[in-house]
Amino acid sequence: MWIETKTEVEEASRSRAGFSRRVLDGLMLCTGDMEHLDTYIQEKWFVLQLAVWGLRGVARVILANNPLSGALILAALYWASPWQGLLGTLGVLASTLTAVIVGQDSGDVAGGLHGFNGMLVALLMGVFSSAGDWYWWLLLPVCLGSAACVFLSSGLTTLLDHWDLPAAVFPFNIIIVLYLLCTGTNSPYFPHDPVTPPGAVEPNDTALIAVEVIRGIPLGVGQIYATGALGPSLLILGAVVLYSPLLGIHAVLGSAVGTLAGLSMAVRHDSLYSGLSGFNGALGCMAVGGLFFTFSWRTHLFAIASAFLSAYSDIALSNLLGTVGLPACSWAATLIATLMLLLTGSLAGYRIPIGQVKAPECNLRSRSQWEAGNTEERESTDV
Amino acid sequence: MWIETKTEVEEASRSRAGFSRRVLDGLMLCTGDMEHLDTYIQEKWFVLQLAVWGLRGVARVILANNPLSGALILAALYWASPWQGLLGTLGVLASTLTAVIVGQDSGDVAGGLHGFNGMLVALLMGVFSSAGDWYWWLLLPVCLGSAACVFLSSGLTTLLDHWDLPAAVFPFNIIIVLYLLCTGTNSPYFPHDPVTPPGAVEPNDTALIAVEVIRGIPLGVGQIYATGALGPSLLILGAVVLYSPLLGIHAVLGSAVGTLAGLSMAVRHDSLYSGLSGFNGALGCMAVGGLFFTFSWRTHLFAIASAFLSAYSDIALSNLLGTVGLPACSWAATLIATLMLLLTGSLAGYRIPIGQVKAPECNLRSRSQWEAGNTEERESTDV
Amino acid sequence: MWIETKTEVEEASRSRAGFSRRVLDGLMLCTGDMEHLDTYIQEKWFVLQLAVWGLRGVARVILANNPLSGALILAALYWASPWQGLLGTLGVLASTLTAVIVGQDSGDVAGGLHGFNGMLVALLMGVFSSAGDWYWWLLLPVCLGSAACVFLSSGLTTLLDHWDLPAAVFPFNIIIVLYLLCTGTNSPYFPHDPVTPPGAVEPNDTALIAVEVIRGIPLGVGQIYATGALGPSLLILGAVVLYSPLLGIHAVLGSAVGTLAGLSMAVRHDSLYSGLSGFNGALGCMAVGGLFFTFSWRTHLFAIASAFLSAYSDIALSNLLGTVGLPACSWAATLIATLMLLLTGSLAGYRIPIGQVKAPECNLRSRSQWEAGNTEERESTDV
Repeated sequence: MWIETKTEVEEASRSRAGFSRRVLDGLMLCTGDMEHLDTYIQEKWFVLQLAVWGLRGVARVILANNPLSGALILAALYWASPWQGLLGTLGVLASTLTAVIVGQDSGDVAGGLHGFNGMLVALLMGVFSSAGDWYWWLLLPVCLGSAACVFLSSGLTTLLDHWDLPAAVFPFNIIIVLYLLCTGTNSPYFPHDPVTPPGAVEPNDTALIAVEVIRGIPLGVGQIYATGALGPSLLILGAVVLYSPLLGIHAVLGSAVGTLAGLSMAVRHDSLYSGLSGFNGALGCMAVGGLFFTFSWRTHLFAIASAFLSAYSDIALSNLLGTVGLPACSWAATLIATLMLLLTGSLAGYRIPIGQVKAPECNLRSRSQWEAGNTEERESTDV
Repeated sequence: MWIETKTEVEEASRSRAGFSRRVLDGLMLCTGDMEHLDTYIQEKWFVLQLAVWGLRGVARVILANNPLSGALILAALYWASPWQGLLGTLGVLASTLTAVIVGQDSGDVAGGLHGFNGMLVALLMGVFSSAGDWYWWLLLPVCLGSAACVFLSSGLTTLLDHWDLPAAVFPFNIIIVLYLLCTGTNSPYFPHDPVTPPGAVEPNDTALIAVEVIRGIPLGVGQIYATGALGPSLLILGAVVLYSPLLGIHAVLGSAVGTLAGLSMAVRHDSLYSGLSGFNGALGCMAVGGLFFTFSWRTHLFAIASAFLSAYSDIALSNLLGTVGLPACSWAATLIATLMLLLTGSLAGYRIPIGQVKAPECNLRSRSQWEAGNTEERESTDV
Repeated sequence: MWIETKTEVEEASRSRAGFSRRVLDGLMLCTGDMEHLDTYIQEKWFVLQLAVWGLRGVARVILANNPLSGALILAALYWASPWQGLLGTLGVLASTLTAVIVGQDSGDVAGGLHGFNGMLVALLMGVFSSAGDWYWWLLLPVCLGSAACVFLSSGLTTLLDHWDLPAAVFPFNIIIVLYLLCTGTNSPYFPHDPVTPPGAVEPNDTALIAVEVIRGIPLGVGQIYATGALGPSLLILGAVVLYSPLLGIHAVLGSAVGTLAGLSMAVRHDSLYSGLSGFNGALGCMAVGGLFFTFSWRTHLFAIASAFLSAYSDIALSNLLGTVGLPACSWAATLIATLMLLLTGSLAGYRIPIGQVKAPECNLRSRSQWEAGNTEERESTDV
């Protein structure tokens, strides 16, 4: 009997282990780049494909490449403001469709590489508009601006390809600045408020509230999607952790570094509380810590340096662009991440060629195989 | 008798046909790039060669490469204002001669590639000067500024050559901005008025006059040469049509698109009436529609997109530079045309290598031969 | 006796000649690039090596590469202001050590290529600070800013390497502008005064004093190190002459050209008197006249053109950046020198590949050998 019981217990435990393994496997299928999904949807309807491409595009904003993360983020945006959610959805669809129409590389389109700039343009147009929510005329510039991102994205990729650099969010930054310059503060059709630079003197100099500053750190992750509410910001952070826990840690770390930099430069309290001080640091930290470079303690230190550089550059650019009432958006993080990708010396050894960038955990795993096989390719891209 | 009569009639008709064919042939000789002229003047005096190079340079401003078009345009400038005509002539000669002296490629010099930037600098210096016509001291900066264009043109060509991009009118745009910054509005020697941005609020908000707006469309073509009069603008348009009717159509179309963009952004009425809203659109449309890309209905649609992008970018840049009293010149069209040349996807298939760009009609004709022969060359320039 | 006497005299004169030859040889050892020192210190302590690398870095600011020149310049800085001297020393050490830590190329570090940007950042932070001398908190941004230069220097080198262009002082110019933007004029920790543009109207329009203007010419050489005193400026000029007399001549010539350009544009008297009008001209002239190009009468003419272009661009950029209270630093000279390196035509024939740049006298001597050997290498870098 004992033997049988043992076998039963073993079997039960095995089936339990099998179940939890299956759950884990199922969970594992939802993390990382989810490449298996691409083969699955290949022969499905165009609408389903477009949805997956769009969701990948949504997640790409925060450097993730996972449609489930994208869905979570989109949910967070609708939660924060249904109007912003709608604009974001429209933006990502408009630019992805434009990319299909103007004949961009289908691999890029499927990877969501043509969606994230359009989405950001749409979100920021909504945030800066002073005409209030549900101002339907705004859909016109949202569609056109998102579509224009595809042109910039394609052109910049050709330009930067020589150094194996991505176009990143340069198209978004250019288009949103052009849009805000075009309309101006007194436009009769698309009015927007001028932006206050972080270095501006505050009317009444109150003491800094520590808990609000700490609350600004997770908000910094949400500010990547121009969301200033805590719940949606945490959901967005969750979406990043789903894609890659390592990236999630760097996001929070970068946002904290950005807040620290903001404190050291005595920026407006508002900037710290809303997370606006943190989001460039977060982006700069995420780009270096694991995504474009294999993770190691050295890369980690460089990621912190990148976060500091991004945060200080953001304060500087915000003060500069603030003199003409413009926001600095994510110019700082984009420029610093590009600089980091160009760096020679010890960091360059960890560099992953742009075409082979995957989730940080995946990068870490595949490094040894890749190192053996693609040495000659690396050399040719390093010219 | 009948037979003879018939023969006579035939002969007469043949001679008539022969005459009209000869006329047509003569006319055909004057259209397009007029390459036969180069072999004809090769062994003539330097002054005659310089005149042809200069006239090509004059036409190059509006993307044409035909000395007769250049002569027509120069006549239009002298018609609009003899002082401006003189400045333009001086500018094109100063920069062409500088290019000869500093040892630039003789093919480029003969093609007028070193003349058009100098001419534009000279014209714009005259237009922005608040010292009035016939202020002879202005000839000094005109000569120096035009000469400086050669340095910028040569350096930028080396820089952009890697992507097979032309230096275009970047040198002019840089030099004129530097000149205006250098002298400032309160310079005792070379004063100029600050520029009003198109987004500025108008003192008295009158209704828009439709006929004036429509009149602004051909004026937009003239504004490429900083000319605001209707007659000379039409003559300039005629010169473009002489070089290539297709280019002429795109010039008017682009100017109309620019005016439309200006209307949608509610720019100052003055901008619309004077054609200043249209000229960037015209340049952006001409560059894509036939010149740097083989003409087709796809290219045509991209040309319209390029016109819209140029026009909106121009409004944005004008508002930005207007905050420090500077004009946006043709920065927008130059940047957008450069972007279009960098584009991947379906437009890239129509791209003509910079060294083989001819009149649109000629591009269209030679495409099939060129496609067969130069495939490998294209690949090497597309890297 | 006569014969013996003659022999004695001969011997005496010979020994005298031998002595002066030895003196001359000793002096010759101290001029030029002093490459023999590198082999000598190779196996010495790290502190001594670091000192030599740092002194090379100090001299690199003024395009010299000689530790003795560096020592003289450092002495001049301490003479002008001990606080500035300390900041400069700290800056050059901070950036050189950072370069060692982040694993930059050891040859570059030993050549002082990572020190000069850091030093300039430190000096300018001190000059613009309105907190007075011996404000110890300033050491924090000085160290961080100098360290950041290494990142920019490394990244820009990769970017510009394709055209065989040096990163030059771009990192310094970027970092100092970012620092000034970051802190702003009303920063509680690191305050600084806004900069008055050279084109600003003067409160009381007094006559120009010729002797002060002439005094501004040597001061222009000192202003490269942000020093406005005559004695230290002359010592700095002496240090340049020690490295290369040809470079020294071009420094004074360029400063004179810059002053002339300033006069022609009626800049503020202060700009002329302090040498601020001259230093960009000096840098632009030195870069072309002998350093990056083999010296000849043609190069000399191009050097003068480069000085004029640098000086006028500096006035323009100073006026532009002055609208937001920023200085133009050495943006103008750096951009124009980069442009000159890109130039095609007769100047390109004299171009020395960046890796083979030595003291002008040395360049002149080695040109013939180099021309024979490295033709194929030149071609590959000229692509």
